[in-house]
Order: sequence, then structure tokens, then C-alpha cells
Amino acid sequence: MDQNDIKVLPMKDLTVDNITENVIRINSQNDDPRLTYVLERLVSHLHDFARETRLSTKEWKAAIDFLTAVGQICSDVRQEFILLSDILGLSLLVDSIDHPKPPQSTEGSVLGPFHSHEAQETPHGDMVSHDVNGEPCLILGSIRDSEGQPIGDVKIDMWETDSSGHYDVQYEDRQGPDGRCVMRSDASGNFWFKAIKPVSYPIPNDGPVGKLLSKLHRHPYRPAHMHFMFEKPGYDHLITALYLRGDPYETSDAVFGVKSSLLVDFQPADDSIAKRCDVKTGSLVLKHDFVLVSEEEANSLREEKSQKALADLGRMVKMVDGLPVPDVD
Amino acid sequence: MDQNDIKVLPMKDLTVDNITENVIRINSQNDDPRLTYVLERLVSHLHDFARETRLSTKEWKAAIDFLTAVGQICSDVRQEFILLSDILGLSLLVDSIDHPKPPQSTEGSVLGPFHSHEAQETPHGDMVSHDVNGEPCLILGSIRDSEGQPIGDVKIDMWETDSSGHYDVQYEDRQGPDGRCVMRSDASGNFWFKAIKPVSYPIPNDGPVGKLLSKLHRHPYRPAHMHFMFEKPGYDHLITALYLRGDPYETSDAVFGVKSSLLVDFQPADDSIAKRCDVKTGSLVLKHDFVLVSEEEANSLREEKSQKALADLGRMVKMVDGLPVPDVD
Repeated sequence: MDQNDIKVLPMKDLTVDNITENVIRINSQNDDPRLTYVLERLVSHLHDFARETRLSTKEWKAAIDFLTAVGQICSDVRQEFILLSDILGLSLLVDSIDHPKPPQSTEGSVLGPFHSHEAQETPHGDMVSHDVNGEPCLILGSIRDSEGQPIGDVKIDMWETDSSGHYDVQYEDRQGPDGRCVMRSDASGNFWFKAIKPVSYPIPNDGPVGKLLSKLHRHPYRPAHMHFMFEKPGYDHLITALYLRGDPYETSDAVFGVKSSLLVDFQPADDSIAKRCDVKTGSLVLKHDFVLVSEEEANSLREEKSQKALADLGRMVKMVDGLPVPDVD
Repeated sequence: MDQNDIKVLPMKDLTVDNITENVIRINSQNDDPRLTYVLERLVSHLHDFARETRLSTKEWKAAIDFLTAVGQICSDVRQEFILLSDILGLSLLVDSIDHPKPPQSTEGSVLGPFHSHEAQETPHGDMVSHDVNGEPCLILGSIRDSEGQPIGDVKIDMWETDSSGHYDVQYEDRQGPDGRCVMRSDASGNFWFKAIKPVSYPIPNDGPVGKLLSKLHRHPYRPAHMHFMFEKPGYDHLITALYLRGDPYETSDAVFGVKSSLLVDFQPADDSIAKRCDVKTGSLVLKHDFVLVSEEEANSLREEKSQKALADLGRMVKMVDGLPVPDVD
């Protein structure tokens, strides 16, 4: 940036009453209308938060220290800011805004902080967990579009904890990816693999986010679930999870991810499945049909919901790159 | 916390429209009404921010990465979250809310990220800067209450950069505190020391906050100033700064700290001052009278402004430990 491009607006004597408009004004001198709009809303809400709580210097300092601790505990394998976003309901909210679902399609859920890019592509039928203490299960999945047509060559990403409730990346001495796989659906939209029955577990609660939950008298548990991610050009990216019905934390998930349509039940394998998939008759099987939304349908639904939400707020907007910016023309 | 104390509210199928009330509800099960209120406003504003911007997953991820980088660059001598709060105007706003000033008292300004607790108590008259390239100056201060009575034994904390615009803590090879002092006012409310003429300088802009300023086409400069902090039991803690009038950044301070009442001019030392303070006749002198507010007056003004601001919002509040919580009785 050329220093000469910076227009300086005269600004001093800022008070509780005039600082917000001035900060917004100085943040509006760049050439990215989306950045300007996001910063305008951010500053406006941040300042209103301070004004409405009459935030004290001591509380502000506690917040600075808290956010610093959240940042400092992050590492290649720990993302405490995602955890913070999760327990404040922001992650679920953003997913719901960005990936609106028409009826009948598979609903989304939280990504969480434990997805990694380490899993190699695995052939159908592989056992993805090496945990001998886990209860083996078989997952039989299918992927269809909203017309019921199978979708082949979808990249499927799955991750789950071991039987003690820990993801592979939570072990310092781990040898490689475990409890994860990446595979592709076949021409009939099917995929299958062996895994272990998910267990409920606490989110990492030895850091600042755990301390906050404890202060709030909130438990840190997530109900048993298996994460899934589906990707194929032309389809809206789907991040979701399947939750075991009847889990003690089904209606109190620490990160607000559970949806009724994502609750699943294991069934006993019949002889035919047992033979075809090389599992014991009566062992656990989970069958689930996933329905992806086309990118076109998701984009149109997202835009429609954006227009409506912002019209309700009294803001005239135009869409730029699929996202709203105020329409000042 | 005993796990049995946790009341679990049934909660699933959270959507864009119902997640906020549910997160607020689960955050309200603790026994600290102030924490509950602060979290209620935080979650409400955070969610409204996402809904009003239709925040995308990609933007959310960029924010997570940004906040993580802000936390990771923090160290014993660098506080990037304070810097972020400063450039968003939050620091000045919180200081203004927490330390309201009646007319005629010295206004507050931003603390900034460079205060340290390293300076030893210094006798009046000491030279607090060892920078031989700085232009020496003499500071003659007095401290009075709002009735004009001198206040003795006030702990005064001062800090400034060297002539290159860097604080001592910004040097990796520093030997000890420099450009800082702690001293106490005498029985007449006076204090004096020798320092160097402040210079304007950029806030640290090699980190994530600097990158954000650059994206916003904002310059990172602060006008030349000298920080002061005043502490004495019975008086409201005063964090302020004196700014050199006519600085090129006087009306565009990157952290919004400048107030007209804090603009000062150097004068040439006359013979009498030169002799009394052992400086050259004609060298730079800065005289300033600071006026502290009693704790009682500050508390009462803070409470009055809180009541008014929250009544304007339509919230019934009661004060607990000097801070508002909603009055639900």
C-alpha cells in the first residue's frame, strides 16, 4: 500500500458516544466493500457489547488474558479458538447460514477442531480404527441427490475417536492417522467401511475453554457421533455427523450439533450382510443415506435467505461473490 | 464443580433462528449474575454479527486463523490482543465507560500494550531515558483534586519510547527498564523528572494487527505522546497520556487516544527553572497540572451513566459490586 493512498480523516476527542461512527469511518477507506461491511458490523456489535455491559477495565483485561491463553494453547493439532466458537454456538450458526438445506437433504453439523488432512484414501470395506478395545461396527452409506439419483465419485471424509473418547491427534506419541478415512463413492453412490461404535466424550477441557465451561456450570460432553464430510464439484460442501440415538448427552451437546434427522440406530447384521461384508452375524451395522444439495440450489437458497434477513433489518444489500454488501447506489 | 450440580436442559435441532436463546439459556445456569449478563450480551451480539453479515465458513475460518495468530505472537513483552482492542477503538471506549470524568478533571487515554512493571521508584529530578539521541526535556507536573487541593503521595507511572519510536521492551537485547519511571508526588502534589521529547511512531505492524491495518488502508502511526498512570487509594485510577500539539498524526491516531485537553506544548526553560532544575536555559520544558477524581465521585458518575444507558435500552438493572446486572426481581 502506498502511504499516499491513505486519506486521513480529522478525528480526535472520541467519546463513548462518537467513537463507533469514527472507527467505522476510518475502516471504510479500503476498496473491499465486503471487508468494510463485515468490519462495520463487528465494530458496531463490539462497541454495543461494551456499552450495554458497561464493561470494566478489569473485565476487559480478563478477556484479553483469556483470548491470549486461547491463542497460546493452539498448536498444529489443537484448535482452541474453534472450540470456543463451538461452545458459543457460533460454529453451528455459521454452518447453518452458509449451507442452507432444502427439506429432505442431509442436515449439517459442527466440524469441530479435530478434522485433519492426514488420512490416505482407503478402499471400501477397510477397517479404519486400530483400537482393539472399540466395539467393531460396519457402516453402509449411500449418497444421492435431491431427486434420489446416486452420486458417484464423491470424496467422503470420516473421523471418530477411539473407545476412550480421544482423536488420534490428541496423542503425543501417535504413529499416524487412526479412526479416519477418506474414500470415494462408487457409481451407485455407495461406500462402506468398518469402524468402531462411537462413544460420548468430553471436548478438551484442560485449557481456557474448559475453564469457561466450568465457570458456567456447563458439562463438556458431546454425545457419541461419527463425523462426515462430503465433497464433489457441483454439490454444496456437506459437513455433518451421525449421532447415536439415546446417548445421555443427546439433548445437551456441549457444542450444539445434534439434530433429530442425524440420530441413528445400529442394527444387527443379518446373514447376507455378514457374508458380503465379512463381519459376524448379529454384529453392529449402521446404514445411512446421505442427500447432497447441488451447489446451484444451495447458492440460490443462501442468497434468498440473506436478502430476507437483511431486508428484515432494513438494510438494502446487493450480492457480491455470493455474499451481501450494503447497496449504497 | 460437582457434576450433579449441572442441570441439563433438553436441547437439539438448533437453527439460525433458535440457537441464540438456547446458548444464552445454557450459559445462565451458573450462580454469577454478572457473568451471565456479560455472556448473554456477548452471545447475542456475536450471533447477530454472523446473521447480519451472513458470515461464510471461509470468512469464519479466516477469523479463527487471525485470532490464533494474534494469540500466538503474544509474549511476555508483546500483547497483540491489546493492540487489536486499541485499533478497534474498544480500549478507549472501555476506559471512557469505566473511568467517567467530571468536567475540569484530566481526561483518560489508552493504556496501550507497552506498560511494564519493571521501573524502580525514582527520585524527583532523575533522567529517565538513556537515549543520547533523544532531545532532552524537563517535565514539571502537579496533581490536584477537583477542589484544587494538592494530592501528595500519588504513585506516578510514566513511560515513553526512545527517539527511534521503540519502547524498551521492544528490544531483544535490552539491559533493563528505560524510558520509564515510577515516582511519588510530594506534599504539594508536585513531581518532576527529565526525559526525552516524545516522537510519533508506528504501533508494531509486523504481526496480524499490522496486516489488518494494511488491508484497511489505515496507517499504523501514533502521534508523539508520553504515557502517565496515577494511583492513590481513594482516587479513581487514571490512565492517560500527553500529546504534542501539531503532530502530523494528531487527528488520525491509529488507536484513537488523542483528546484536545491532553494536547500540550513545550516551552523554553527560563533562567529560574534552568538553575533550579539543572537544565540549560532555553531547553524544552513541559508543565502540566493533572486533576484526579475521587473514587466516590467516579463511582457515582459511573453508576449514573450505567443506569441511564441501560434504561435507554429498556433494561431494568441493579448494581452489584459497581456493575450492572439485569434486575429480574
